[in-house]
Amino acid sequence: MKKSLGPNMLVYPAPIWVVGTYDADDKPNAMLAACGGACCMQPPCISVALRPATYSHEAIVARRAFTVSVPSEKFVAQADYLGRASGRKEDKFTVAGLTPVRSELVDAPYVGEFPLVMECRLVHTAELGMHTLFVGEIVDVKAEESVLNESGSPDMTEIAPLVYDIGTRKYLGIGDVVGRRGDASAKIV
Amino acid sequence: MKKSLGPNMLVYPAPIWVVGTYDADDKPNAMLAACGGACCMQPPCISVALRPATYSHEAIVARRAFTVSVPSEKFVAQADYLGRASGRKEDKFTVAGLTPVRSELVDAPYVGEFPLVMECRLVHTAELGMHTLFVGEIVDVKAEESVLNESGSPDMTEIAPLVYDIGTRKYLGIGDVVGRRGDASAKIV
Repeated sequence: MKKSLGPNMLVYPAPIWVVGTYDADDKPNAMLAACGGACCMQPPCISVALRPATYSHEAIVARRAFTVSVPSEKFVAQADYLGRASGRKEDKFTVAGLTPVRSELVDAPYVGEFPLVMECRLVHTAELGMHTLFVGEIVDVKAEESVLNESGSPDMTEIAPLVYDIGTRKYLGIGDVVGRRGDASAKIV
Repeated sequence: MKKSLGPNMLVYPAPIWVVGTYDADDKPNAMLAACGGACCMQPPCISVALRPATYSHEAIVARRAFTVSVPSEKFVAQADYLGRASGRKEDKFTVAGLTPVRSELVDAPYVGEFPLVMECRLVHTAELGMHTLFVGEIVDVKAEESVLNESGSPDMTEIAPLVYDIGTRKYLGIGDVVGRRGDASAKIV
């Protein structure tokens, strides 16, 4: 029996990403985002949604660029901090002990310690209400060699990204492989 | 040391969602989507990205509505099937053994067996290239009482959603709780 929970952004699972930007003084900033997702294969695009009040929002509008860095599970404390402090008041990279790396492709920094990063140029903006949806074209993905499999593809188990439980405000890791695309259907009873 | 993987939609983690629509004959259809994410808290919005060639794409454009049903891990075979067949040729709900439930709020069906569903009216569309980004306002979330905690919030561990590894085409479950928003920061060394 289903119960109505009303109009709510109870979206499962949500990713935990870190959005990297430069402010007007070229200071690198990083914020946590759980609102976003892949949105086009060709050109490859990703969306992130930010409140206009955030420091990162004005940076994306000004530079028309951002990065998305994917923290591993072991960086949960840093990720949580990046979601609670503001780059307007703090040098968040320094406090978190993380290294801003200047992208050579877009006007934004990424997190050196995180295993996979996407460098994006802004291609679409939509004002939806409390959040602005930014769509970035992924001009390059960079990954630590340690998370690549023998075919050269990233393996999510090695990346060990976080997922966010919006309802209970918990961070979770990812679990076991339960199927492979094209093979799983054999199991329909 | 990071390796460049080029411009690719290597987005981690990606959700596994089932998008529900009605076709021109009122036949319910369901397709798998791994491209999408939360995108606004107020009004609550979610995005899904579909290729224009899909049967579901024309249904969303025509009805200006869709649902997102979140399959539990145990429905991995059904989810996989819904991602490989086309509603243009098959009655996918029937083949998958799933029950289409007519939403009373939007002009689309959801999957009765899945633990959490979102009923959405289309509020924004963006043509990005190979995919069209559809943003839906979530007019209601419905969840099985069995996945709600004592506060009445969904608990992701009970929902047991799938995440998708785009690089290796594997479906994974979710893992253990590794932190709670606001508490995790104590661990920064």
